[in-house]
Amino acid sequence: MMDIRPVLFVNGFLLLVLAAAMGFPAVVDLRADDGDWKVFAVSAMATGFVALALVFGARPKGRPSLTPRQAFMLPVIAWLLTATFAALPFAFSTLRLSPTDALFEAMSGLTTTGATVIIGLDKAPKGILLWRALLNWLGGEGIIIMAVVILPLLRIGGMQVFRMESSDKTDKIKPRITQVATAITLIYAAFTALTAVAFWAAGMGRFDAVCHAMAAVSTGGFSTSDANLAHWNTAVQWVAIFAMLVGGSSFTLWIGPWKNWRPKVLDDAQTHWYLMFLGAFAGVLALWQWAVNDMSPGVALRHAAFSVTSVVTTTGFVSTNYSAWGGFAHVVFFVLLFIGGCTGSPAGGVKIFRWELLFAMAGIHLKRLLHPHGIFVIHYNQRPIGQAVLDSVLGFVVMYFFTFAAFALALTMVGVDLVTALSGSASALGNVGPGVGSTIGPMGSYRGLPEAAKWILSFEMMLGRLELFTVAVLFSRSYWRE
Amino acid sequence: MMDIRPVLFVNGFLLLVLAAAMGFPAVVDLRADDGDWKVFAVSAMATGFVALALVFGARPKGRPSLTPRQAFMLPVIAWLLTATFAALPFAFSTLRLSPTDALFEAMSGLTTTGATVIIGLDKAPKGILLWRALLNWLGGEGIIIMAVVILPLLRIGGMQVFRMESSDKTDKIKPRITQVATAITLIYAAFTALTAVAFWAAGMGRFDAVCHAMAAVSTGGFSTSDANLAHWNTAVQWVAIFAMLVGGSSFTLWIGPWKNWRPKVLDDAQTHWYLMFLGAFAGVLALWQWAVNDMSPGVALRHAAFSVTSVVTTTGFVSTNYSAWGGFAHVVFFVLLFIGGCTGSPAGGVKIFRWELLFAMAGIHLKRLLHPHGIFVIHYNQRPIGQAVLDSVLGFVVMYFFTFAAFALALTMVGVDLVTALSGSASALGNVGPGVGSTIGPMGSYRGLPEAAKWILSFEMMLGRLELFTVAVLFSRSYWRE
Ligand SMILES: [K+]
Ligand SMILES: [K+]
Repeated sequence: MMDIRPVLFVNGFLLLVLAAAMGFPAVVDLRADDGDWKVFAVSAMATGFVALALVFGARPKGRPSLTPRQAFMLPVIAWLLTATFAALPFAFSTLRLSPTDALFEAMSGLTTTGATVIIGLDKAPKGILLWRALLNWLGGEGIIIMAVVILPLLRIGGMQVFRMESSDKTDKIKPRITQVATAITLIYAAFTALTAVAFWAAGMGRFDAVCHAMAAVSTGGFSTSDANLAHWNTAVQWVAIFAMLVGGSSFTLWIGPWKNWRPKVLDDAQTHWYLMFLGAFAGVLALWQWAVNDMSPGVALRHAAFSVTSVVTTTGFVSTNYSAWGGFAHVVFFVLLFIGGCTGSPAGGVKIFRWELLFAMAGIHLKRLLHPHGIFVIHYNQRPIGQAVLDSVLGFVVMYFFTFAAFALALTMVGVDLVTALSGSASALGNVGPGVGSTIGPMGSYRGLPEAAKWILSFEMMLGRLELFTVAVLFSRSYWRE
Repeated sequence: MMDIRPVLFVNGFLLLVLAAAMGFPAVVDLRADDGDWKVFAVSAMATGFVALALVFGARPKGRPSLTPRQAFMLPVIAWLLTATFAALPFAFSTLRLSPTDALFEAMSGLTTTGATVIIGLDKAPKGILLWRALLNWLGGEGIIIMAVVILPLLRIGGMQVFRMESSDKTDKIKPRITQVATAITLIYAAFTALTAVAFWAAGMGRFDAVCHAMAAVSTGGFSTSDANLAHWNTAVQWVAIFAMLVGGSSFTLWIGPWKNWRPKVLDDAQTHWYLMFLGAFAGVLALWQWAVNDMSPGVALRHAAFSVTSVVTTTGFVSTNYSAWGGFAHVVFFVLLFIGGCTGSPAGGVKIFRWELLFAMAGIHLKRLLHPHGIFVIHYNQRPIGQAVLDSVLGFVVMYFFTFAAFALALTMVGVDLVTALSGSASALGNVGPGVGSTIGPMGSYRGLPEAAKWILSFEMMLGRLELFTVAVLFSRSYWRE
């Protein structure tokens, strides 16, 4: 039997953070004289109680350390447990969400998906709005730390490429990890603060600015208005575009030594592809809107840049109803659901570096057909990439599309229509938020979906968030065999 | 510069076969006193003239032999050239199809896709109906020969697994290839004759029986009625199910020594998966139709078995409007568009053996995550499979889905709606025929699509038929660099 105490111990700490976070909406509600503050206070106490029980009850003897088996289980338990407790305020506040809806909203928040079942956000209690933004923000932070600390060690989907240089010397790992995690948390908080100020300067109210800053930098996408970012002015929308751009970039590359005030992120192969890709698609869609649908050039450029950035960074903010742009845009936005941001960011999806490696592999594959005995090596950021990494990347992509299809199938079995099932599955797996079409498209809502569909989507969001294999491994026979 | 004379020489022979084939519809029309016989006679003469010019003009000195570069180009030129000449009768017969429609119909026939732009088949001249069936049949024959002779040599999509045992000893290749090709042609013709007799015994007229036998065994799917197989009785439909089953199986394994009257095909890993897969999906859909849509059990089983077999073998025959079976069936049939038949058959799609290897790779991938230093080997038909084959298979599948998405995108750019674009792209790439939805679904037609969409689909059918890489290689820089 595996010793799950270290897993529970770490999860206790995470719940402690969650309980502390519930203090913020409690204070906001108390100051607004909203009775919901009691809901947050009681939820915080319940969460804190379980947290302390785990921390003290499962305290490991000696130094804490994780075996690979424990490392696979840790994030799965973490997202399940935090989502369950994060759902309490949704269920018991004046919104009175059903257990299904409350868990969907919490899981959607913590996975930075941002799909919502709540209608009437503009008049919702401020505490709940802040709580949703906080879930996005904490989930985003959690996922960056996981992508930096856990996934490379587990070699999931080629992530070993991003192993820290020093990670082979065991004696230096722990202080280095703490250092990196602290630096990332600081830069993440700094970007959020900057974005909040920029939103406020562009004309948003202070509360909305803070909430949207947390939702943007985390690529979460929860808004405080049913109309989402379409509710605010042009300047606010441009600020959102830049905040989402930062949210989808590699946070690992923002830290570390800047030479001449130039962060490493600007010299990274993934960043270059990311920007080229966004520019190309935004350009094509802007042209399309201008030439085919008679949109004025400035408006076309803003909405195209906004919508493409929003979907590729998997934020899911909405500035306009791009579902009304016609069939071509439908398919573009459907395809964009699969792209994803950069590794080391809170963004979901397949991720840019995997597409880069896939593209390189395709090129080499063609060369090999003509030169069977030639020797070809794939480079990434000037470093040669080994076969094991390429295998992992391919395995990941195949598994990704397989999961997408299986969940789309499951959704139709419980009565969801074709377009909603396909785009809903892709959106949940990529943690994007909106899908395509009238039900869950940019102007739609997840509220009306069948109960069963919400459970399927909640599980799929978690699966996507944890890069599939952390979860899949737990279902494999060899994991449980000793 | 590459010497393209051997390519043209072989293509001359193929055109000669096509010209000879035009004789059959000419005779049928002549006997029916239909003026269209002249169209076939003139088309045959034009085709025969060009064929002879190529055969004599491009006759290579010494023994004919192909370099890899020439072998890549041969099938592309072959399908382009034969489709162009095969389109002549469609353009000049009393149907008077536009050039676009004529080429679409011819390419659809020769790639065994079976998507049609003709409405009014029940009253169409017999010559045209026979010509469509012949195109299916000749295209199917061509593709088996290509899959057995050319693709394994070019190592496309892992096809090197199916290289003939003796193919490494160069002195023995040619006689062996001729022998195998002859045997396959005989068994293909025998199955077609058997099917025709069975159709006739089940109640079809003689002419329809022959046409449908050619369309079934080739997995082409052209019918002589707008209502397709729904026009005929239950017995005919069961015959079609078995004929399609045979059409989707490995013809290479039907030849060779039978032990105790048991062909090798029954002991093959691919055949087992093929049958299990068909059984499972037919069973699930039959249950669904019975339990959810209140179909009587016998009818549900027949239509489920028919429709699943038709789509997986990429035949595209239709016994009922399965588009009316609801959202779950929609997605099932959409997913089935990607599966494909067995290698060594005239069926299209990704093909069963590639799914088997993908599945095995996924299993090993999970094991490797837990045991980084373990050594795992994938076996196929009891033989170990090397990394180069697995790479090719993965490369193929990734390229397949990429092509699917790119063409779906192109279709929407010319004004096709989302569901039609997605299912049309998948259907053309897999050479299936019908898509999903009301436009090109089982009861729909390709006739109403925009001109540009028909060209896009024609090209995609060819791309799918030639397993992508034969065409893709021609577009690569290294192909043309010397
Ligand atoms: K999101
Ligand atoms: K077909």
